[in-house]
Amino acid sequence: MSTAPRAAIVVTGDEVLRGRVADRNGAYLAAWCDAHGIGVVHVSIVGDDRDPIASTVREHLGAGIDLVITTGGLGVTHDDLTMSAVSQATGAPLREHEQALALVRAASSGAPNRSSVPAQIRDAIERKQAMLPRDAVMLVPIGTAPGCILAVGAQLVVVLPGPPYELERMWADAVGVPPLAGLVARAGGPPRRVLRLHGVAESQLVAALDEIPVAVRDGARLGICAKAAEVELTLADLTTGGATRLGDAIERAFPGATFTRTGQQVEQVVGESLTRRGEHLAVAESCTGGLLGGRITSLAGASDWFLGGIIAYANPVKHEVLGVSNGILSRYGAVSAPSAEAMAVGARTLTGADWALAITGVAGPGGGTAAKPVGTVFLGCAGAHAVLVEEHHFRGDRALIRERATVHALHLLRRAIADTEA
Amino acid sequence: MSTAPRAAIVVTGDEVLRGRVADRNGAYLAAWCDAHGIGVVHVSIVGDDRDPIASTVREHLGAGIDLVITTGGLGVTHDDLTMSAVSQATGAPLREHEQALALVRAASSGAPNRSSVPAQIRDAIERKQAMLPRDAVMLVPIGTAPGCILAVGAQLVVVLPGPPYELERMWADAVGVPPLAGLVARAGGPPRRVLRLHGVAESQLVAALDEIPVAVRDGARLGICAKAAEVELTLADLTTGGATRLGDAIERAFPGATFTRTGQQVEQVVGESLTRRGEHLAVAESCTGGLLGGRITSLAGASDWFLGGIIAYANPVKHEVLGVSNGILSRYGAVSAPSAEAMAVGARTLTGADWALAITGVAGPGGGTAAKPVGTVFLGCAGAHAVLVEEHHFRGDRALIRERATVHALHLLRRAIADTEA
Repeated sequence: MSTAPRAAIVVTGDEVLRGRVADRNGAYLAAWCDAHGIGVVHVSIVGDDRDPIASTVREHLGAGIDLVITTGGLGVTHDDLTMSAVSQATGAPLREHEQALALVRAASSGAPNRSSVPAQIRDAIERKQAMLPRDAVMLVPIGTAPGCILAVGAQLVVVLPGPPYELERMWADAVGVPPLAGLVARAGGPPRRVLRLHGVAESQLVAALDEIPVAVRDGARLGICAKAAEVELTLADLTTGGATRLGDAIERAFPGATFTRTGQQVEQVVGESLTRRGEHLAVAESCTGGLLGGRITSLAGASDWFLGGIIAYANPVKHEVLGVSNGILSRYGAVSAPSAEAMAVGARTLTGADWALAITGVAGPGGGTAAKPVGTVFLGCAGAHAVLVEEHHFRGDRALIRERATVHALHLLRRAIADTEA
Repeated sequence: MSTAPRAAIVVTGDEVLRGRVADRNGAYLAAWCDAHGIGVVHVSIVGDDRDPIASTVREHLGAGIDLVITTGGLGVTHDDLTMSAVSQATGAPLREHEQALALVRAASSGAPNRSSVPAQIRDAIERKQAMLPRDAVMLVPIGTAPGCILAVGAQLVVVLPGPPYELERMWADAVGVPPLAGLVARAGGPPRRVLRLHGVAESQLVAALDEIPVAVRDGARLGICAKAAEVELTLADLTTGGATRLGDAIERAFPGATFTRTGQQVEQVVGESLTRRGEHLAVAESCTGGLLGGRITSLAGASDWFLGGIIAYANPVKHEVLGVSNGILSRYGAVSAPSAEAMAVGARTLTGADWALAITGVAGPGGGTAAKPVGTVFLGCAGAHAVLVEEHHFRGDRALIRERATVHALHLLRRAIADTEA
């Protein structure tokens, strides 16, 4: 089992280390490696200083890690020092790379605002970005900065840029380039199942696992991750067929809770159902303010099944655009079951959609009352034959309450669709 | 300068290491430390195994780090091993903590689904969560897991839970508890400026910095971070008043580009302007599908100035709800300046808002044409006296194009408001 190549990722950047920007690159590379059978053992975030970058790379190489990937620090400013740090860590001196310089010049000639930068500064910047460790394989710039693959004996160091878009495209190129392509081919990629369950608590899972025979339990490596309103289980074979057997046993313990066996998001599951049925969805959002629509439209094919909807944050929009009656708003309030129902029906009527989802609640931190404390959320789902309404009391801060409301709304729709097919 | 306490953060969890969940805790703690004058030198992400957690904690203590914070791995499942790893790293044996056990039992007695877990498993789970290193100061559970502060000579190890909501609340408690409170008090918190500029490229900044006298440049430590449509500069004093002097010099080089000196997001800047003026905003979103509304309503006070709007993803919604004429849609297309203008005007009229922002574009990866390639986005901003329209061609993937469109729309509104005040 432990013949799989091992990787470590070194994310550089003061802005990430100071928590001013969330790391996206480390997570992207880790997920890629994981999906391709490369075991990530460490992700480090270090600052824009040469020494910590160099010492972290050196430590990983010393620990026998097969693949060390750095991200960031290839830009044009004084604190972009990664190439120099990698040179220091590996002993490969920096050299001006002729082809890299030509590509950097070509890339920066089209940059906006270029003419406002004096020529000699421009030249210094371009030459800095074209310096690579000796014998490194250059990776063609996606923005203006080239990356590289450097072999250190049988180990590899891959140097990638920081902007996520550049990183992802350069990585896609890099995995096809010989020294790295060989390592990726060697990794293979183990069979794996990813189950997602809705409506099951982590402690229930622990109890259920205890009931499963040891031989089945020990046949797979199980990762458990509780999400906003879901539990995700990743299963990797320890014995042949072990992930499948353990997965089946868990599913049997919670009938109907599994909504995907392939790691799909709930919005993908819902989207595939609606596309298959030729139906469309609209939304009416109050406390989530557009998050539900934003999440749905993060999927490229959403236009096949999503029409749009209404962000009804203020009550007059609920009344005038969605047609929620003033009687409902004054008698029950905007955060109420009748309001969620009327919002869903209003969005469905206004857009002509087959289905409409409505969310109204108190996301906090202010606005809570004794009767409707922060976290109170009503969900409505209107279809051709019925309107379903759910009342929830979510714990957490504003961001978490809004996320939970969004995910639960999608599960309400998923079950409503399933009911019509039962 | 280097008397500030230094911290390292150890994030545990296979799901983070495998890139299945983005780390939020490391970023949160790093930002907190940074804002309070504690220098974060390393953030590590390691898996749910005892040895890597223990060896990482041991390395940081060996390197003389003042404060090592771990997050995650305090749950009820077999791969929650952080307390045990901290015990191994520090040599402080685990003991059942009486008060912790009482609190764990009290917390779990209210848990949903509890009755479905057999009593002896429940007891084992509760006892596991109540095991703390000897002489550690317990941190009261927010969910069901207690954390702790452990003094190792003059160094501190703080053990926090993984769920971000629990972590943030427990950390807020922890910084008031004696051994950690002393370290935080010692850190002080250096004066710092955070400038955000819109419409300036990183290479222009480099050129501008070159023009600033060395004495001014060397007076402050400068961090530069390019965001979706902004550049953020963090300035810390190296000499008294140095951050202010360098900040002033940079601002003078780019008149009108600075939109905040306190690190505010553009939606906060816009929200404060509108609140001061007693005006309201509505949105009309096509390719962003609700992201703009979702971003605005992430601010708790948004109801003071935000009404809501229309997610007009499908063309019939643009026509029937927003009143974009079929002539515009057929002659110019949904992605066009006339359509952006009509969407903004339609949203303003429909909601009665003072201002309306519209976004329509091709977010990709499909849907691009020679005339309107992926990344083409039109923004509209309707006010009482004029409608502004901008055409953009963004690079990047679907997520980045949608983010850039959202941020540029907010800047369009910011400038439109400023124009009326000029």
